[in-house]
Amino acid sequence: MVPRYTRPQMEAIFSPAERFRIWFEIEALAAEAMAALGTIPAEAAKVIRERGTPRAASIGAAEVEAIDAIERVTRHDVIAFLTWMQEGIGPEARFMHQGLTSSDVLDTCLAVQLTRAADLLIEGVEAVMAALARRAEEFKYTPTIGRSHGIHAEPTTFGLKLAGHYAEFRRNRDRLKAARAEIATCAISGPVGTFASVDPRIEAHVAEKLGLAVEPHSTQVIPRDRHAAFFATLGVVASGIERLATEVRHLQRSEVREAEEFFHAGQKGSSAMPHKRNPVLSENLTGLARLVRGYVTPALENVALWHERDISHSSVERVIAPDACIALDFALARLAGMMEKLTVYPERMRENLESLGGVVHSQKVLLALTQAGISREEAYAAVQAAAMATWTKLGRPEARSFAENLLDNPAVAARFDAAALARVMDPARDFAQVDTIFARVFAAT
Amino acid sequence: MVPRYTRPQMEAIFSPAERFRIWFEIEALAAEAMAALGTIPAEAAKVIRERGTPRAASIGAAEVEAIDAIERVTRHDVIAFLTWMQEGIGPEARFMHQGLTSSDVLDTCLAVQLTRAADLLIEGVEAVMAALARRAEEFKYTPTIGRSHGIHAEPTTFGLKLAGHYAEFRRNRDRLKAARAEIATCAISGPVGTFASVDPRIEAHVAEKLGLAVEPHSTQVIPRDRHAAFFATLGVVASGIERLATEVRHLQRSEVREAEEFFHAGQKGSSAMPHKRNPVLSENLTGLARLVRGYVTPALENVALWHERDISHSSVERVIAPDACIALDFALARLAGMMEKLTVYPERMRENLESLGGVVHSQKVLLALTQAGISREEAYAAVQAAAMATWTKLGRPEARSFAENLLDNPAVAARFDAAALARVMDPARDFAQVDTIFARVFAAT
Amino acid sequence: MVPRYTRPQMEAIFSPAERFRIWFEIEALAAEAMAALGTIPAEAAKVIRERGTPRAASIGAAEVEAIDAIERVTRHDVIAFLTWMQEGIGPEARFMHQGLTSSDVLDTCLAVQLTRAADLLIEGVEAVMAALARRAEEFKYTPTIGRSHGIHAEPTTFGLKLAGHYAEFRRNRDRLKAARAEIATCAISGPVGTFASVDPRIEAHVAEKLGLAVEPHSTQVIPRDRHAAFFATLGVVASGIERLATEVRHLQRSEVREAEEFFHAGQKGSSAMPHKRNPVLSENLTGLARLVRGYVTPALENVALWHERDISHSSVERVIAPDACIALDFALARLAGMMEKLTVYPERMRENLESLGGVVHSQKVLLALTQAGISREEAYAAVQAAAMATWTKLGRPEARSFAENLLDNPAVAARFDAAALARVMDPARDFAQVDTIFARVFAAT
Amino acid sequence: MVPRYTRPQMEAIFSPAERFRIWFEIEALAAEAMAALGTIPAEAAKVIRERGTPRAASIGAAEVEAIDAIERVTRHDVIAFLTWMQEGIGPEARFMHQGLTSSDVLDTCLAVQLTRAADLLIEGVEAVMAALARRAEEFKYTPTIGRSHGIHAEPTTFGLKLAGHYAEFRRNRDRLKAARAEIATCAISGPVGTFASVDPRIEAHVAEKLGLAVEPHSTQVIPRDRHAAFFATLGVVASGIERLATEVRHLQRSEVREAEEFFHAGQKGSSAMPHKRNPVLSENLTGLARLVRGYVTPALENVALWHERDISHSSVERVIAPDACIALDFALARLAGMMEKLTVYPERMRENLESLGGVVHSQKVLLALTQAGISREEAYAAVQAAAMATWTKLGRPEARSFAENLLDNPAVAARFDAAALARVMDPARDFAQVDTIFARVFAAT
Repeated sequence: MVPRYTRPQMEAIFSPAERFRIWFEIEALAAEAMAALGTIPAEAAKVIRERGTPRAASIGAAEVEAIDAIERVTRHDVIAFLTWMQEGIGPEARFMHQGLTSSDVLDTCLAVQLTRAADLLIEGVEAVMAALARRAEEFKYTPTIGRSHGIHAEPTTFGLKLAGHYAEFRRNRDRLKAARAEIATCAISGPVGTFASVDPRIEAHVAEKLGLAVEPHSTQVIPRDRHAAFFATLGVVASGIERLATEVRHLQRSEVREAEEFFHAGQKGSSAMPHKRNPVLSENLTGLARLVRGYVTPALENVALWHERDISHSSVERVIAPDACIALDFALARLAGMMEKLTVYPERMRENLESLGGVVHSQKVLLALTQAGISREEAYAAVQAAAMATWTKLGRPEARSFAENLLDNPAVAARFDAAALARVMDPARDFAQVDTIFARVFAAT
Repeated sequence: MVPRYTRPQMEAIFSPAERFRIWFEIEALAAEAMAALGTIPAEAAKVIRERGTPRAASIGAAEVEAIDAIERVTRHDVIAFLTWMQEGIGPEARFMHQGLTSSDVLDTCLAVQLTRAADLLIEGVEAVMAALARRAEEFKYTPTIGRSHGIHAEPTTFGLKLAGHYAEFRRNRDRLKAARAEIATCAISGPVGTFASVDPRIEAHVAEKLGLAVEPHSTQVIPRDRHAAFFATLGVVASGIERLATEVRHLQRSEVREAEEFFHAGQKGSSAMPHKRNPVLSENLTGLARLVRGYVTPALENVALWHERDISHSSVERVIAPDACIALDFALARLAGMMEKLTVYPERMRENLESLGGVVHSQKVLLALTQAGISREEAYAAVQAAAMATWTKLGRPEARSFAENLLDNPAVAARFDAAALARVMDPARDFAQVDTIFARVFAAT
Repeated sequence: MVPRYTRPQMEAIFSPAERFRIWFEIEALAAEAMAALGTIPAEAAKVIRERGTPRAASIGAAEVEAIDAIERVTRHDVIAFLTWMQEGIGPEARFMHQGLTSSDVLDTCLAVQLTRAADLLIEGVEAVMAALARRAEEFKYTPTIGRSHGIHAEPTTFGLKLAGHYAEFRRNRDRLKAARAEIATCAISGPVGTFASVDPRIEAHVAEKLGLAVEPHSTQVIPRDRHAAFFATLGVVASGIERLATEVRHLQRSEVREAEEFFHAGQKGSSAMPHKRNPVLSENLTGLARLVRGYVTPALENVALWHERDISHSSVERVIAPDACIALDFALARLAGMMEKLTVYPERMRENLESLGGVVHSQKVLLALTQAGISREEAYAAVQAAAMATWTKLGRPEARSFAENLLDNPAVAARFDAAALARVMDPARDFAQVDTIFARVFAAT
Repeated sequence: MVPRYTRPQMEAIFSPAERFRIWFEIEALAAEAMAALGTIPAEAAKVIRERGTPRAASIGAAEVEAIDAIERVTRHDVIAFLTWMQEGIGPEARFMHQGLTSSDVLDTCLAVQLTRAADLLIEGVEAVMAALARRAEEFKYTPTIGRSHGIHAEPTTFGLKLAGHYAEFRRNRDRLKAARAEIATCAISGPVGTFASVDPRIEAHVAEKLGLAVEPHSTQVIPRDRHAAFFATLGVVASGIERLATEVRHLQRSEVREAEEFFHAGQKGSSAMPHKRNPVLSENLTGLARLVRGYVTPALENVALWHERDISHSSVERVIAPDACIALDFALARLAGMMEKLTVYPERMRENLESLGGVVHSQKVLLALTQAGISREEAYAAVQAAAMATWTKLGRPEARSFAENLLDNPAVAARFDAAALARVMDPARDFAQVDTIFARVFAAT
């Protein structure tokens, strides 16, 4: 992932050095388990741990390059790493990796990396949730127009809008927890997964120490449906980010201006047009969502490996594992900050809400008319006609309010006077269940 | 979905008539709840139920066409349906749909349809699991070569192969159950989801009667991240089908011939080449997996609706909801049948296993050499050289077995004789943990 | 594809009956070529044509069912068809299909179907182009605000907007023509494409009569990169539809109201809210675009068939070939009609254009200031400050115009008076190149 | 893209330093055109060029960091760059970028980068074509079994196989040339693309100097359908790589062993199993193809920008433009080298070809029988029965050849003796059209 969208903590998980350190940890744990079982000398495991630990800890750019240089000869990454470690550990190193395959190390390492990444992503979602919860509470009763199809529909509150996104991110947190469980398994089962050369108790030991579950049936590799489910979940989370980003982009439109991304001192909206204040963060998030979604299908295509395993998944994962996690981590952090600092204009919300002459109360009128005995068809026609008469003359000198247009209809006027109609259209009714919905959304789990 | 890939039970769920019947059920349940709350006359709810039930039950092709004809005027499907129902119910019909929006009906209906579809898909996965469990037990100890990269690696058993797929389908069943829970929610919350015109207790009643949860926060629509998660899960399941189908395609290759799809009497493999027996079912399943995967991204793109809702998701779901469910349902049924009847050739498996002169035991030799004190590097070189000497002369007059080539190496010969080497390469070691793995995979949950 | 999004002419291309008729045409043409080469008796080809033509023409629902019934035994569709044809043709039918494979018939048939479909799609794009050209001319000089990031930027004209979409659809027409050429090839090359049993002159004859090119190298199948390129092109066209649909959705927003989809007499925008007039057509088109895009990846996955061919592509194409073509055909027709009848509100465009107090002319002022000797940095700061002062007080009693705020700045006032500033901000400059751009876009090709 | 899959020449195109240098070139060219038109002083353009050129040329890591530091304040990349350039150019720098928008620079720069990338990709495809042409000629008449469905079908030659892939890559070259033309346009049209502040002749000058076409209608941005078509083409090319890679993976299977990737001295196939020689390059290419395909959908989603432009496409392109080009460039180079050095085993091909007792000639026998007067149905049954009798006893003591089994059938024996049957099955017929096909495929264009 390009540096622009990379945060250091997530990047570190996928750095070459960290990968090598996790490899060593897996090898050292396996050696200790083998020593306990008597498969290799206890002394060897001790030496591996004692001499290997500082060597692994020392891995920096130069060491990575040294290991890569060996790989250019062996054309095999794990063998290159073991060769390099052996230089520091000495002859006892020959007891490392006994009965293991590269995949035992690589796949368990990936599980460690993805679980750590999942933990960061869950934190990221929780930061978004916290921002949304705070702002939702702040604007719990702030009236704003609800829009369906981009058209004014009925009043809602800005807090309710945010609460809906909170509910989605809460689901996303739960999905990420499930996705974390999907990929948190350890496989140390040897060639084609038969344990012919490695005792299952070694796997159990490594798994326990690393906080992973034992993979019930690996075939040299951890089955890739797990990873597919993981990356698919990232795509769902990314799409939720896009939904909220799209909302902000709409709210910041010049004609709407109900909210704005925080505009920094010194920031320039446009090189050509100094008046511009653009929703660039939410547009950026929209693009990042496309990116993360794009990684879902390659992960799905990785599932159908040939026989016990092939290695076609490897190049895919070398790219999408860091890229999807890093991009999503960045997007979540950006979104949380953006929502924390979002500038909200309640007055403008009220102006927009009232800008259509009251037609947004059409459904309440429709209900009142039918309850007053007018047939549904007739009531609908009356309300639609009055709404159109209002709507089409908005801002014109001859404009009249929705209520006035309604009262022009004799069937309406026979049943309601202006005061009665005002009671029917009282916006208080629109907010009567705000507490109910908040209670549902923010209920403890 | 084309008839060729459609099974009637799944198709019925998505038929226009069934959709209308579910709509009526939602409207009738809502009316009963409104009557109980005193919002509409109790008599009205009774009439709606009594006169509406037979009318809804009567819906066939002609009635669908009649409703569609009304829609061509109103350009609104739910209003067309209500108008048509009113003809049968009479004036009390005006109490139907009071305070509801179309989405309340449409989205709750889709939830009913998708939960039913999920139930069928879970059954389908369980049928695959049952077939795999039976065949895995049948071939639990049948030796076959395990292959990594398409290359012979080490022995495994055919039962272990099948058990691995069983484990994946078991995960897929659990994923489908989670996906079912994702979309099993009911929303009856009125315009922009504020309950301004519909009491939340109506939603609670409808949800309970339909076996759904209440959607904590709908914004006129049920949020589409739920559906995205659902269809993404279908994509994961489809990819698992592809993995097993790919295995069968490989096993049936002319050079492998370890298993074959059942070939029916009268079946013709090729119009031109009468000798052909092609793995057409598993190839077909491979294609169907691509189809189902293709529906994932549109579902993800559906998440970011504008504001409280737009209707861009509707055309997508009209197509992919039935198409994805129907194609996956068909694929699961086809796969279960295919695995039930798969013709397996254990003798051919044994021939293939032994065809490479014993090199498939190279890792066991490698381990033995290192444990006998040869350095890992030297042992690797010795084993690789002997393997290549064996491999490259296979089937030639000058061919020698892997063991013979190994014993040519003085370092090996100094530590092992032919008998000792045979013990090292004893295939029994490869199968020692079959029971362990089966116990893990088929453990009750 | 569901009937709702299906137009009869496109559907007919992919109907089972039409497919069988094309199969017969290919077989009859091949037989005639074989007769000319002396491979089969001339009389046989004559009988095949004479008796086969009415039989093929007669194919309706019952005949399709009869052929399908045979397929349920043979499990092979081409053999089933040949068997059914033989009943009508008599013993000479044995000279049909000699040396051919099913793929020769199936793939050439698909080429015929997709070229016809491409022709309809090109017509569809041209209808959109015609509508856009007419409306672009109509509103060539109608001022409207150009928006970047959803924020008012600088004036443009509504005709220019439409011309930009015209240019895109013109590119899409050219892409569709190239895509048509991609798939317009004929393969009659027998098993694995070696012509071992069928003379290449037969292929040449069939290709010529069907208006197709000869496939230079088929391997029993026409290579699927051609189809992948075809369906990828459909995805690009669909995305262009989405772009225009998104524009209309934005223009119809309640706060913008610069254009509206035609609203039919009798149409109901919402079952609950009679005041609603929703951009449902363009929302629908947005969804259809997602659908068509979703078919691209399965087509790309179809490329990597095994060896000379496998049949995994078949189930994919049975679904996506009709579905992608039908959905795109429908979308193009809907879009053309929608743009033809789009209600445009030039007055509202002017109101929006002027609603921000003149800040949309900021770049012209910035240029004038720098040309008057103010440094770019200083000028930018001055313009940005004046714009923000204007913007943030819009609609407030204390609101002042952008020009007034600019003149508050001494550096500006030192160089410009109000009249000079008005000249700088003259909107006429914004439209000076409209003719130039129109000439480029609508240049004959 | 990770370093492992990155080649320096392609990486350089997308480096930050190179991007800044292209930006400067665009700005300098624009300034020269403005000077020629008298919009800015001629001296200014001269100074910009003279002082700017060395400054731009000097850009290294430190300078990139300096520019980025400015961006962290301005939050605008082009303004940051201009500010940094101004430090080196002096006050004349204020005449840079006059009337331009950032997009003029960014989009024209991307066009320069993508055309250069396309040139490298075309070279890459041509290298693959050259390797395939050479090897196709080498094995033009080398018999090998053609396989449909993975099942032996009829003989073909290895040269024909390779020629088919050559034909596909030739199409891919042509597609890349078309894709290059798609994105090779220049836009210098100012805010919302109206040329209100920039004369169209400036655009014409810059376009000509950069070897680009003028974009007929930009709306501040170059329309993204162009880029979508470009990246979709990369997805098609990648899928063609996967098809060839899949062929090699199949040929290297242990049971097939007809070809092998070159195995380097010192290479290790497996850390655990020293006997392994795995097709790791082609597996790697399979994964890379998935990656490149994954970038297609984000590019398609980028098309529907809002109004005249939004910036959601930017984050997508910052990642996929380099990543897709770099990954495909690497894959093409790897593929060309792999095919150059592929080890081919003609003897093994012959063994496999003959391994099924002659049933691969079934279609020639079928044709001969029908031409000898047996009905197609009867002939098919006879051939299928003999093939199955042969097939199912392969390698058994009771095995008999396909010819022997055929002659057991009285209807066959009545018309053919063993010698006649041998003539019918003569493999020479299978290769009669090899020259024809080669002539078609390698015809000059």
